[in-house]
Amino acid sequence: MTIDAANPHFGSDNYAGVCPEVLDAFREHGGGHCAAYGDDPLTKRACDAIRAWFDRDCEVFFVFSGTAANSLALASICQSYHAIICSPKAHLEEDECNAPAFFSNGARLLPTNDTEGKVTPAELTRLLRAREGDIHFSKSRVLSITQATELGSVYSRDELRTLCDLAHDADLMVHMDGARFVNAVVSLDVHPKEVVEGIDVLSFGGTKMGMPLSEAVVFFNRKLAEDFEYRRKQAGQLASKMRFLAIPWIAMLEDDTWRRYARNANARAQQLAARVRAIPGINIRPVEANGVFLTMPPAMVEPLRRLWKFYPSEHVRFMCAWDTTSEDVEALAADIERLANG
Amino acid sequence: MTIDAANPHFGSDNYAGVCPEVLDAFREHGGGHCAAYGDDPLTKRACDAIRAWFDRDCEVFFVFSGTAANSLALASICQSYHAIICSPKAHLEEDECNAPAFFSNGARLLPTNDTEGKVTPAELTRLLRAREGDIHFSKSRVLSITQATELGSVYSRDELRTLCDLAHDADLMVHMDGARFVNAVVSLDVHPKEVVEGIDVLSFGGTKMGMPLSEAVVFFNRKLAEDFEYRRKQAGQLASKMRFLAIPWIAMLEDDTWRRYARNANARAQQLAARVRAIPGINIRPVEANGVFLTMPPAMVEPLRRLWKFYPSEHVRFMCAWDTTSEDVEALAADIERLANG
Amino acid sequence: MTIDAANPHFGSDNYAGVCPEVLDAFREHGGGHCAAYGDDPLTKRACDAIRAWFDRDCEVFFVFSGTAANSLALASICQSYHAIICSPKAHLEEDECNAPAFFSNGARLLPTNDTEGKVTPAELTRLLRAREGDIHFSKSRVLSITQATELGSVYSRDELRTLCDLAHDADLMVHMDGARFVNAVVSLDVHPKEVVEGIDVLSFGGTKMGMPLSEAVVFFNRKLAEDFEYRRKQAGQLASKMRFLAIPWIAMLEDDTWRRYARNANARAQQLAARVRAIPGINIRPVEANGVFLTMPPAMVEPLRRLWKFYPSEHVRFMCAWDTTSEDVEALAADIERLANG
Amino acid sequence: MTIDAANPHFGSDNYAGVCPEVLDAFREHGGGHCAAYGDDPLTKRACDAIRAWFDRDCEVFFVFSGTAANSLALASICQSYHAIICSPKAHLEEDECNAPAFFSNGARLLPTNDTEGKVTPAELTRLLRAREGDIHFSKSRVLSITQATELGSVYSRDELRTLCDLAHDADLMVHMDGARFVNAVVSLDVHPKEVVEGIDVLSFGGTKMGMPLSEAVVFFNRKLAEDFEYRRKQAGQLASKMRFLAIPWIAMLEDDTWRRYARNANARAQQLAARVRAIPGINIRPVEANGVFLTMPPAMVEPLRRLWKFYPSEHVRFMCAWDTTSEDVEALAADIERLANG
Repeated sequence: MTIDAANPHFGSDNYAGVCPEVLDAFREHGGGHCAAYGDDPLTKRACDAIRAWFDRDCEVFFVFSGTAANSLALASICQSYHAIICSPKAHLEEDECNAPAFFSNGARLLPTNDTEGKVTPAELTRLLRAREGDIHFSKSRVLSITQATELGSVYSRDELRTLCDLAHDADLMVHMDGARFVNAVVSLDVHPKEVVEGIDVLSFGGTKMGMPLSEAVVFFNRKLAEDFEYRRKQAGQLASKMRFLAIPWIAMLEDDTWRRYARNANARAQQLAARVRAIPGINIRPVEANGVFLTMPPAMVEPLRRLWKFYPSEHVRFMCAWDTTSEDVEALAADIERLANG
Repeated sequence: MTIDAANPHFGSDNYAGVCPEVLDAFREHGGGHCAAYGDDPLTKRACDAIRAWFDRDCEVFFVFSGTAANSLALASICQSYHAIICSPKAHLEEDECNAPAFFSNGARLLPTNDTEGKVTPAELTRLLRAREGDIHFSKSRVLSITQATELGSVYSRDELRTLCDLAHDADLMVHMDGARFVNAVVSLDVHPKEVVEGIDVLSFGGTKMGMPLSEAVVFFNRKLAEDFEYRRKQAGQLASKMRFLAIPWIAMLEDDTWRRYARNANARAQQLAARVRAIPGINIRPVEANGVFLTMPPAMVEPLRRLWKFYPSEHVRFMCAWDTTSEDVEALAADIERLANG
Repeated sequence: MTIDAANPHFGSDNYAGVCPEVLDAFREHGGGHCAAYGDDPLTKRACDAIRAWFDRDCEVFFVFSGTAANSLALASICQSYHAIICSPKAHLEEDECNAPAFFSNGARLLPTNDTEGKVTPAELTRLLRAREGDIHFSKSRVLSITQATELGSVYSRDELRTLCDLAHDADLMVHMDGARFVNAVVSLDVHPKEVVEGIDVLSFGGTKMGMPLSEAVVFFNRKLAEDFEYRRKQAGQLASKMRFLAIPWIAMLEDDTWRRYARNANARAQQLAARVRAIPGINIRPVEANGVFLTMPPAMVEPLRRLWKFYPSEHVRFMCAWDTTSEDVEALAADIERLANG
Repeated sequence: MTIDAANPHFGSDNYAGVCPEVLDAFREHGGGHCAAYGDDPLTKRACDAIRAWFDRDCEVFFVFSGTAANSLALASICQSYHAIICSPKAHLEEDECNAPAFFSNGARLLPTNDTEGKVTPAELTRLLRAREGDIHFSKSRVLSITQATELGSVYSRDELRTLCDLAHDADLMVHMDGARFVNAVVSLDVHPKEVVEGIDVLSFGGTKMGMPLSEAVVFFNRKLAEDFEYRRKQAGQLASKMRFLAIPWIAMLEDDTWRRYARNANARAQQLAARVRAIPGINIRPVEANGVFLTMPPAMVEPLRRLWKFYPSEHVRFMCAWDTTSEDVEALAADIERLANG
């Protein structure tokens, strides 16, 4: 355990805490007795809120973590010999300790050669053709895409349509990892239902919205939800006091709390980008959601890490959260500027 | 979803909500930014609180659910070809949708023929000898016992010592399912460390204590904890905002909140037993923790279920929770009495 | 490794070697080059021979072992949260080191309380009703029955029809473990197709017929065979030189070799039963296939084990093989008689 | 099933059949009764023959297929969260339908960026450092190398020593996929024991030597063999009539049959290479074992495939087998020459 002194504010959007609306809802609904395991009115109300939010009939299941949401959604589609096509930057591939193979007892991730965070139609097509029908390899069964992506970009509706059509034409299902789904929705400035057209199952992230923890697996292709309750239970993802996974969704979706916070996170990323764009030596990737991915002179990285917590990899990443303030952004930008000016 | 009108109060101790101390701690510690995935001061403080509480060095990991705590603890011991000896009433065997086999990719539950909720030395000895070394069967590797048991009883320290010695002599590890561990501790009226003598790994239940959700896997045999962080991550049991699993333990263990609530739950069970014991047709099992298991004339069951939520199986079960009141007990007892008197 | 001196002849029907017809076929077809992994004329011919033998269209896949045949057949039906109803004496339950859970990543065996080797309609019905729809348990998905059974009996066609109808009515599939399928066929004296009416998938045993090793997974419900080739490959059950699993079936089924040997094995069991039935202290279960299951005075068991290899459990078991001779039987019977007479 | 008319002779070394020495041994040892599951004198003799051949104490287990040998060997080392470093050309990665993840319930293959068939020290070092200790990725636990490689080359003893030292220094085990181990041994012209220095576990291929099927998992690091018998049984890889997996090893190793056939296969590859090397447009990779990997003008490929079965991928591959004759080679070479000359 290495608890460091750097300001954690842009380390990750899961470094943030819980928003007051959720705390208030816990206080309002968290006492008294009700049936466990989801058989209670609050869970029903939260599922209905999600259905209303999407304006679509769908099957909704709350689970504890994004890794579990992704892996259970994929396991409901994949047998052990299947392959999951994804970006090489996908959280699935890079940051889940091979959980999809664990939950499905062997299904393989098949990353494209894309380098920019999105799966491209060309790469999807190439993989769909490679070793098709070869039992010595594996059988491609799902396309998984992340919205917003792990590099801070957002698939347009046209891009989504093209990928979904390609996948479905090849008899693949489409999974969307929506750990930052609301950031994509406000970025595209459309109704949520338009972001899930063609999607069979969505991992809908609540934690990064401002909840303590809660993710929803949302099946728009309702056949895939068959027996999902058994699968969730067996995987240790069925909450006994389910209302505590449900209450935050009520607090977030029944009014526009989700939108207010997502807009703030995205706006803070824009602010940061605008603030540092002109600094010599800084190159910023397009900012479309709540993250800023940039490169900076290597000599700046370590001094900056002593001041701020962030993850330098191929890019330096700064994530803005529901509660990031203009002052936070300004303080970070000022430090970057100062270090750049040596 | 069947949301019924019966009073849920004795349905299960996980029908209860969150206690005010935890809500207050969420408000106190739930804002601001800190590192994710457990690399934060609150998680460290909660782990230290557990170590202090047991007055033992041990490895502590928070997970989301009791099923996950049990299965991950067992998977850290078992290979796919191993067997787990347990009571036929064990939650593992009866209520986890074969999760231990899922997490360990095949390990088998080997229930004894005990009928009273506890594993007995005679049955453990019998199973240890049966098919020992027979590769066509499986290799016994763990004894799992539940404290307090699924039938409301509590293993004495002598019983625990005998079972642990038998298991260890046969090169088995001992796992304790402590979903209601604090109820056992207050029942035995000893220091917690005395209840885990000989135990290699404990699933320490927080949810039923009064938390929204949080379970701790506590390795007293620290070698078993090797790489457990990878295992937890891969299984989707690593909370990003880990502090929300940790904060409740701080609220519960740093002062005597845990004891106050566990004593209340146990006392309410005693009150209920005392209140209905003399009613003709009612036979009560010994009450040692927070549950009352009894038999009643079959004709009483359905009318009572219209009034109160409970699970009738071999026995009728009434569970008392951290927040059960004397008035709740009195109301239930009065209904039982009235129905018994026709 | 304990290689003992006792005559192994009745130890098991897999103690026998390879029959000359198969050796001759290996010599005839085992040289020269042909495509691997089953894409060769001999494999096609063997599959056709099985289809002709059953006079039914079906999907046929050769695998190496009975455990694999059973587990892969079941994995093609079961998800990890499913249950497989079977006899408590089933090879699946007693002798496969929990392989079904390994191959399916968690599916549970759910043995009936039957004690006589067969699953009975009453027990099947009881289990179908117990905890139906309870996600905390598991979902029953397959009935697995063994023909001939592990206790030497054979399901009649009426018994099979009743069980299959009960299973299918409850939306379960039916698997038949046919490690000794040909012994059942000659015992019932019917066309093989009549023994698989209502069966969705059969593990058709070749090894005990007189092959060195080869088992066929035969899907009469052809939808279940979808992608089975991937599953077999991934499980390490795809032979590169597949013809060596196929050739023995050609040798056995294209003429009546199978029948001749199965009849011999069954007849030798009848001979043994007839020979020892009248001996005081010997109680013989009904002999319907190639095994004799009896009880004898405990004092006789050890002296007999020094002379003959056999497995004493609840019953003493003597298995007759394709090559067992009248002289072998007579020698065993004489020893039993001598020991019984003190 | 696409049974084609092209001459299969160079399609793969597993297109070849069984050698006469093995057939004769089957006839000699394949009758009569002996204990099943390996508890017989022939299995003991074959294991001893392998130990004598390596002149080392080691644990030996026969299994049915190369995929199973590799996956079981790796599962005996890996937990579900581990990673296996290998070449991107490894059979493990390219041709086993993700079996390692299936057998280990999730372990991940981590291919190097090497393109020439061998793992290089530079790439191994790079991967050992990348994301070390990062629980969000996976923990590297094994280096798997193939000897002879999938591109027809052979690791020198120095190369092996360097890789094994690097791996062991990083606390990794080393697995060798020896599907064509004897071809490497005769190529290096050393005692077999010198090819396994530093190797913890070897998948020792029998099938391609000239057996119908049999692979040996050989643990030189004997601790890894603990409980392997359970693992093999559970995975459906325990032969009941084990002698039929053992007899071929007796036939091959007790005299120099293995060497004679391996030398022939390697010599035929050299002959083919020598014969076509000078043909314009043909570029041959170094030939060190029994395969010839070359590139040819694309226009030649399809006409040649109508005559000969082979697998064109990045390279055109021609495999020579134990029974390949000079005349076979000459016929193939003549066709290549003719097509090259238009």
